Amino acid sequence: MEPAQDLGLGDSSLNRYLDGEFWSLKKELRRLLGGCPLFRHRYGLSLDEMRALTVQRVKFILGHPLVKRAFQEQAEKTKNFVNRGLVIGEVLSTADLATSVKCGIIYWLFGGAVRNLGSPRHVTQWLQPLKEQQYIGMFAMTERGHGSNVRGIQTEATFDLAAQEFVIHTPCENAQKMYIGNAMGGNYAAVFAQLIINGSSQGPHCFIVPIRDENGGLYPGVTAIDMMHKEGLHGVDNGVDNGILIFNKVRIPRENLLDKFGSVAPDGKYHSPIKNKSARFNAMLAALTPSRLGVTFQALSTMKLGLTIAIRYSHSQRQFGPKAKEEVRIIEHQTQTLRLMPHLATVLALTFTSRYAGALLDEDIFQGKELVSSRALQALMAGLKAYSTWENVSCLQDCRESTGGMGYMMENRISDLKCDADVFVTFEGDNVVMLQVVARELLAQYTKQHKDQPLSGLLWSWVASVSDKLRTSFLACNTDAIGNLAFLLKAVNFRERVLQRYLVARIYYKVVTKKEDFFHAWNSCLHHITLLSLAHTHRVTLEQFSLAVRSCPDPQDQALLMKKEPLDLIPWGKFQAPLGQD
Amino acid sequence: MEPAQDLGLGDSSLNRYLDGEFWSLKKELRRLLGGCPLFRHRYGLSLDEMRALTVQRVKFILGHPLVKRAFQEQAEKTKNFVNRGLVIGEVLSTADLATSVKCGIIYWLFGGAVRNLGSPRHVTQWLQPLKEQQYIGMFAMTERGHGSNVRGIQTEATFDLAAQEFVIHTPCENAQKMYIGNAMGGNYAAVFAQLIINGSSQGPHCFIVPIRDENGGLYPGVTAIDMMHKEGLHGVDNGVDNGILIFNKVRIPRENLLDKFGSVAPDGKYHSPIKNKSARFNAMLAALTPSRLGVTFQALSTMKLGLTIAIRYSHSQRQFGPKAKEEVRIIEHQTQTLRLMPHLATVLALTFTSRYAGALLDEDIFQGKELVSSRALQALMAGLKAYSTWENVSCLQDCRESTGGMGYMMENRISDLKCDADVFVTFEGDNVVMLQVVARELLAQYTKQHKDQPLSGLLWSWVASVSDKLRTSFLACNTDAIGNLAFLLKAVNFRERVLQRYLVARIYYKVVTKKEDFFHAWNSCLHHITLLSLAHTHRVTLEQFSLAVRSCPDPQDQALLMKKEPLDLIPWGKFQAPLGQD
Repeated sequence: MEPAQDLGLGDSSLNRYLDGEFWSLKKELRRLLGGCPLFRHRYGLSLDEMRALTVQRVKFILGHPLVKRAFQEQAEKTKNFVNRGLVIGEVLSTADLATSVKCGIIYWLFGGAVRNLGSPRHVTQWLQPLKEQQYIGMFAMTERGHGSNVRGIQTEATFDLAAQEFVIHTPCENAQKMYIGNAMGGNYAAVFAQLIINGSSQGPHCFIVPIRDENGGLYPGVTAIDMMHKEGLHGVDNGVDNGILIFNKVRIPRENLLDKFGSVAPDGKYHSPIKNKSARFNAMLAALTPSRLGVTFQALSTMKLGLTIAIRYSHSQRQFGPKAKEEVRIIEHQTQTLRLMPHLATVLALTFTSRYAGALLDEDIFQGKELVSSRALQALMAGLKAYSTWENVSCLQDCRESTGGMGYMMENRISDLKCDADVFVTFEGDNVVMLQVVARELLAQYTKQHKDQPLSGLLWSWVASVSDKLRTSFLACNTDAIGNLAFLLKAVNFRERVLQRYLVARIYYKVVTKKEDFFHAWNSCLHHITLLSLAHTHRVTLEQFSLAVRSCPDPQDQALLMKKEPLDLIPWGKFQAPLGQD
Repeated sequence: MEPAQDLGLGDSSLNRYLDGEFWSLKKELRRLLGGCPLFRHRYGLSLDEMRALTVQRVKFILGHPLVKRAFQEQAEKTKNFVNRGLVIGEVLSTADLATSVKCGIIYWLFGGAVRNLGSPRHVTQWLQPLKEQQYIGMFAMTERGHGSNVRGIQTEATFDLAAQEFVIHTPCENAQKMYIGNAMGGNYAAVFAQLIINGSSQGPHCFIVPIRDENGGLYPGVTAIDMMHKEGLHGVDNGVDNGILIFNKVRIPRENLLDKFGSVAPDGKYHSPIKNKSARFNAMLAALTPSRLGVTFQALSTMKLGLTIAIRYSHSQRQFGPKAKEEVRIIEHQTQTLRLMPHLATVLALTFTSRYAGALLDEDIFQGKELVSSRALQALMAGLKAYSTWENVSCLQDCRESTGGMGYMMENRISDLKCDADVFVTFEGDNVVMLQVVARELLAQYTKQHKDQPLSGLLWSWVASVSDKLRTSFLACNTDAIGNLAFLLKAVNFRERVLQRYLVARIYYKVVTKKEDFFHAWNSCLHHITLLSLAHTHRVTLEQFSLAVRSCPDPQDQALLMKKEPLDLIPWGKFQAPLGQD
């Protein structure tokens, strides 16, 4: 790995602005990782060797004072601890995604479960030794039968009054915990299971279950099965050991229930600050959402790396050119620029937007607000997770294709990043499910704003008339208008508004007028829902990007960020033919 | 691997219709590969072990009578030998893509060079021992500095009159032959080099250059550097050894020039049936294009496999559902169906269209026609290569995402297929370059048809008026019309026509009116060009699909192929808002 200064990640005012508030922390980390022999890229290691190397890397990074400080801040909920943790993940991902993911499992997932679902006692008991690397944590939520619909998980935690213990049990194959990171070497897992008292379930709760002793021996009743090879996180950046965990009546002390949202007294009485079982589980899930923002930061990091490689290569390789003249650099081929530059713009836009989401999150946590009450923020994080990780797949694919055969070779990193980062679209919440989280919030907002208005025919005609009026202005637009930021903001706003109002009308018609069951009504609008949620996320992202550009303190940097390339594309405004986007 | 009959690839009339004319050959091959322990999937092998396994697999398959017969037919140009060769590649790809690619290098690339660029003497001398596996062939065209623009390659073949030899030489780093398949074990390479006689170049020609003796020892002057790890073709389906070849004044006999399009007499006189250097090279390149169709068949094969896995999984896994009822199968989620079914339709459409292209090719070759004169067919093969391989990337990505974490695990094959097949978009001609081949042909057709008409202002207004008229009918359309095949055919036809006429007008304006240099004019329209070429390929594909469905002999099968699902999507016809396809 080249030292950070050679990567052009220097100290200019633009570098600092793009790196954000914690630029000096990022710089320090880049210098640390860039100069560290442990993080040199290795190829052709066996699965075991790669895993062992990743464990070493994780140990090294978690033992570093910069990172230990982040743990301390997490435990103390110091102001801005979220954003500081996020940028550590971002920089670490450029060095090795597997290490970053493994650290994320320990810090965000296991650590996050303790901090967000546990009592202060749990935080003291579990976070301090986690910081000191006295044990390795895991996060066991997903089951074979329930990945997205985690409410339906089947692992059981039955309270045994006499023994003052919970009995953790896997009743069937579908209840096996799947894809559990660190499963082949971790010591404690945050296990989600149905809390059963006197034969009835209080819904899923989270329990700390000992998996292995300090010598790596599995505790009685626990089975761990190696899931072995994956698309990514197994090659150069090998090391995330995913496995299946199966529990056969494993007993844990009553105290191991993370009981912020629901506790069991010694006499077996269940108590929760949230009476409704469904609302209770929502509160727990909401408390865990910051890790989604972590994925967004990791995805941004791999995109930045891929684009840096692809854009530099495109400036050095030459191919074709005017007759009898030197061939032109491939970046000068129109298609090459058009493939790479929109991704560059998107990654910058998403950088500012994710930072904005991080700041909101930090503020909420600092003020002691429960995340379940910040529904808009939850929706934003879910939307950003989906948008950034899909953009990541598409961006890295274009980087790979834009660099030809070179992009296919491991040593040039793009293909490796592609395989590793591909998991982001389904883990930490499948993207299609994430978009439904966004849409639910948008519908709720709509209903709140319009609760006195009837939703019937009136709305339909309103939508139609508004859209017609605005359509006219779209048809009249030309390429100049399309390059105009104010126009773009209006356009994405319009799209979102129309999609939202129309979705409300459709669902209202199906559920209220036609008396369809809600699940089927919702399901029959799923395509519409994903369009709306993406449109919403695009709008917020464009707004934040526009704000960030306008707030850029250095006039020269600002001018560069605002630079428009005159594009000689097809002036579709003259045609009105559908764009051939197949 | 399950036996073929268990894969549902049985003997029904629909199976046969979808498998095409050579269904029984395919069935035989599937049975052979399905029952062969050598083709069982292996994980976690080292690079060397995987390569060794692939060599064994290649030996096995090339030694099989079915495949030896295909070689014989290639040498004899038996009727339909192209299509028979293509389906062998298709079936082999489902078992192991690396084996299929390695066989392709030997059969299509090396064998194709000998057959298409050599004289009958070369065919006799080289193809018979190739069939008998007495040596392994390679194809060395791409250089570090020239991948797409192969006309500009820099490897030299200088004629030495006294010795009656060519001296093959790599004059600089950019002239190194890159990504050469079989480079670490092959014996002879078909090497493209500038043919230099008396200090002046006759343009690129192809030479057979000995690389290694039968014991694997490199010949003097030849250097082979292992390119090691790649995104794909290195994991489960490891085995394609790509390398760099460097020549230091390697001497080969005069007879090793494949001299169908250009020969050197003992006295050093150059002779070619094609006087123009550029036209001559075009003829050589054209002769090599059948291998592009081979890539299309391989891409189709991986898509079919990926879709089979994803669609079956979607019918077995359940998630979410109406309150207090059983969860629904995930295929019932609207988004899941909408992600997978269009790919299924596309793969079927492309199956029939590629078969059609194969039949045209077979016919041309059978009639002894030079491919350079079948420009439309060349364009079709280039377009199909780009369309099918991009569709492949998008299809397998959706298969992977639709199967969640399961799709990310190697053992479920999708991620592995994804990594392996990703190379298709840039090898055998980068897709963006392929689309330019298509556009050149479309422009040439247009010019031929309209050579007496002026291309100026008249055309512009004509396009505008036609598009306006048709636009009106688009706006009036509703979802019923969109599902109507006749309407769809009209629509894709219209799109292509408008794009084509308008491209002609743009280029005419730039080159003739504004006197821009052709390269820059073309380059400034590159985005438009790719849209046009894809639109053309889509139109041809839809037409062939429609024809195939109408020609389906069994009424029940036909009804199934014509089945339309009523879609409760957003009736955009009522909105006219732009589709949110970002």
